[in-house]
Amino acid sequence: MQIIITGGGGFLGQRLANSLLKSSLPFDTLLLADIVMPANPTEDSRVHCKQLDLSVEGAAKSLVTPQTTLIFHLAAVVSSHAEKEFDIGWRVNLDITRQLLEAVRHINPTIRFVFSSSLAVYGGDLPSVVNETTVVTPRSSYGAQKAIGELLVNDYSRKGFVDGVVLRLPTICVRPGRPNLAASSFVSSIIREPLRGEEAVCPVSRDLDILVSSPDTVIRNLIHAATLKTEPLRWRTVNLPGLTVTVQQMLDALKRITGEDTVARVQFKPDESINRIVTSWPGALDNTKAMQLGFFADVSFDNFIHQHIADNKQIA
Amino acid sequence: MQIIITGGGGFLGQRLANSLLKSSLPFDTLLLADIVMPANPTEDSRVHCKQLDLSVEGAAKSLVTPQTTLIFHLAAVVSSHAEKEFDIGWRVNLDITRQLLEAVRHINPTIRFVFSSSLAVYGGDLPSVVNETTVVTPRSSYGAQKAIGELLVNDYSRKGFVDGVVLRLPTICVRPGRPNLAASSFVSSIIREPLRGEEAVCPVSRDLDILVSSPDTVIRNLIHAATLKTEPLRWRTVNLPGLTVTVQQMLDALKRITGEDTVARVQFKPDESINRIVTSWPGALDNTKAMQLGFFADVSFDNFIHQHIADNKQIA
Repeated sequence: MQIIITGGGGFLGQRLANSLLKSSLPFDTLLLADIVMPANPTEDSRVHCKQLDLSVEGAAKSLVTPQTTLIFHLAAVVSSHAEKEFDIGWRVNLDITRQLLEAVRHINPTIRFVFSSSLAVYGGDLPSVVNETTVVTPRSSYGAQKAIGELLVNDYSRKGFVDGVVLRLPTICVRPGRPNLAASSFVSSIIREPLRGEEAVCPVSRDLDILVSSPDTVIRNLIHAATLKTEPLRWRTVNLPGLTVTVQQMLDALKRITGEDTVARVQFKPDESINRIVTSWPGALDNTKAMQLGFFADVSFDNFIHQHIADNKQIA
Repeated sequence: MQIIITGGGGFLGQRLANSLLKSSLPFDTLLLADIVMPANPTEDSRVHCKQLDLSVEGAAKSLVTPQTTLIFHLAAVVSSHAEKEFDIGWRVNLDITRQLLEAVRHINPTIRFVFSSSLAVYGGDLPSVVNETTVVTPRSSYGAQKAIGELLVNDYSRKGFVDGVVLRLPTICVRPGRPNLAASSFVSSIIREPLRGEEAVCPVSRDLDILVSSPDTVIRNLIHAATLKTEPLRWRTVNLPGLTVTVQQMLDALKRITGEDTVARVQFKPDESINRIVTSWPGALDNTKAMQLGFFADVSFDNFIHQHIADNKQIA
């Protein structure tokens, strides 16, 4: 029994690997694949790491084996990157997903395929609260690519070519490390950078509603998707629960926990291209379907900050 | 100024060509392309015909020219065919659409690209009346492929790489000729075959609601899409108006116009695989968006039968 994580070198992939190793989920090997050689997060001999450009012809087929039982497909080009580099976005976010599904179909169609989609599939004139019956009209290439991946996973699942689950992830906060090319990068920056004594730039207004999930909750939900009973699911797509907070509420929590000085390190500088993408995303979710299926929800933004501080202590 | 019709040898392509030649739309050449050599429906020297397998690498690029101003992309593998031949469905309905959009992007991004999608993008638990805010959860590979094509046309349009319009066509009735591999093939058969003295099989129940459009109305709407102002459209997808009729109402109209004997030629033989696809499609449409944009609607099913009888007289 083999588990594969694509994007296994990334923040989520590494964290997921660590959690899988501590979980009761049975497996013999855990393969972390990424375009740059993933770090091995552990001494556990079950973990294997592989450098692989999945966009190369035949690469997906070389990854999947008859022993594979579970794939977490996390590899993606993020939103602003896909918006700037149109061809790369389609190649990575659409073609790789399709090639992986084809590999699964021909090698072992019983594989559970957990596809990380995004609330960025939503866009345009949205109801104040969205759910799985809300129409998908993305306003970014990233959103379009993820929406197409969802349709692929659903059709392959309906045909019995894969056992897919699509999770639409809220924006994750707090991501560790440095800002990336996601339009939502600031959501972590405005907490993370001030906490380590650095300036951060917020490109959106204080009253913007943002849907966030903490890393721990997203990982729990990814693992839950691995064993979810899919027979009752007529449509395999689920909006993961997200907590709605305004930028101001995030900064208020930061002030409450760490004081006035920390918050003063956040500068507001509106950025039109980021605003256009981020304001097209939904600000509030109806979590009914996810909760009925046993997924987990965050309850307070203070916990997001405490989680990040605790993570940093562990590393230090 | 060149117009291209893919699927130009098909029923809609040929009929569209005839109507374009009679229309006030200005053009120098009208290129009909299809996988088998299209018939030239006229003596008009502006018409050119081309045999071309668009799924071959480079074929789409060889078709589009800097002089092309308008493409009607009608070529497709129909619903039951795409359900039976999974690979062919994706290659034709997804890959060709994508390759055509890539060709337009690089050769002349101002091209108006009219993409014929289908109400088959809808599926599953639908509201009693659907409109453009209804979520798209197709229950057939054909529907998934068309839904993906819609997302592609919208994203390429948003980026300024094409000037796209997506029309979701209702089931067309009465198609001439013979039954085809569309799950909806019976919708024409149960009118067409009895009219020429032949038996027809109806695989669904008498009380099933079907959304239909007459060939004349679909052609008018395709031509309307060619000159539609797209600036005000934030999302390029439009449900073409459809008339809701039950199978029984269709047969009642047939009886009214041609008598008892004709209707007696229709046998009811339930077919589970056709039922599963057809009953997943919507039975009623809210036409508001289409009507606001100036598209046309059918008003009575009697006219569908009169139109078909008149068509056959013209040919005879």
